[in-house]
Amino acid sequence: MDFTIRAATLEDCKDISRMILELAEYEKASDQVKITQRDLEQDGFSKNPFFHGIIAEVPEHHKSREGHAKVGYSLYFYTYSSWKGRAVYMEDLYVMPEFRGKGIGKALMSKVSQLGLAAGCTQLNFTVLDWNKSSLDFYLKQGCWDVTSDLGYHCMRCEGDALEHLAQGDL
Amino acid sequence: MDFTIRAATLEDCKDISRMILELAEYEKASDQVKITQRDLEQDGFSKNPFFHGIIAEVPEHHKSREGHAKVGYSLYFYTYSSWKGRAVYMEDLYVMPEFRGKGIGKALMSKVSQLGLAAGCTQLNFTVLDWNKSSLDFYLKQGCWDVTSDLGYHCMRCEGDALEHLAQGDL
Repeated sequence: MDFTIRAATLEDCKDISRMILELAEYEKASDQVKITQRDLEQDGFSKNPFFHGIIAEVPEHHKSREGHAKVGYSLYFYTYSSWKGRAVYMEDLYVMPEFRGKGIGKALMSKVSQLGLAAGCTQLNFTVLDWNKSSLDFYLKQGCWDVTSDLGYHCMRCEGDALEHLAQGDL
Repeated sequence: MDFTIRAATLEDCKDISRMILELAEYEKASDQVKITQRDLEQDGFSKNPFFHGIIAEVPEHHKSREGHAKVGYSLYFYTYSSWKGRAVYMEDLYVMPEFRGKGIGKALMSKVSQLGLAAGCTQLNFTVLDWNKSSLDFYLKQGCWDVTSDLGYHCMRCEGDALEHLAQGDL
């Protein structure tokens, strides 16, 4: 199947928002999604964007059952390792179920890697849920390694009231 | 003990580079550090910086045994969650051993939280090594939670030849 990978534009935010929800449903966490199409437009497509996006698109005659031609996406941004320097972080990688197994996910990931290398990055980082064995296997097959299992890195988070308290220095 | 927390400047890169190495030695990984003072100057203090930094400084009469007045630092940058939106990531948090237990680490972390909230972030994210129990306890005490233990997030990485292959799409 033909498909194209291209940079996301403001006009893609409606479809990105739809696919973010689809991915969250797959990850059993759709109640966690607070981001709207308008947030994506503001945060990704104004001056000093917080993220960048790429879109996988199929020709009109291959559209999904519901009529979608935009069938996959990845969001990414640049980060920094104080050991290794510039890095690129892949926040999401998603392909609609009926378009899987056609190389679209790999093409999206390849594009993020290209963009990272072009920006002088030496690492591509992302997270995966430990129960998502098919994704984990896919990533390991691409030569990625599990930093949490191999080195013991744990992701930590502060949010809500705890973050407010921390900012106020009154804990 | 008096100390000040302030934004890092180009002139701090020598001390940041020194403290990055001290932190890596503590984490038993000093052979992993490829970043030089010059890399930090280029990547953090030119247009579109890859990271920002803050410095903890003590008065002249409280300098370290080796004569250092810059005794702690944090590097951070802005990221994005496709569920929750803007986030701030704390790449490093370090206080020289002889200056610990004086609230400097908490003050650095508080400052990163303030900056994050001011930029519209709803999350502070970072990683900790699972064997580093004192750091983990410190963070949990500040109201942070362990996303890896609680939700099963694993950090994944692609680098070196594997990243080149992925970018070329030939795996």
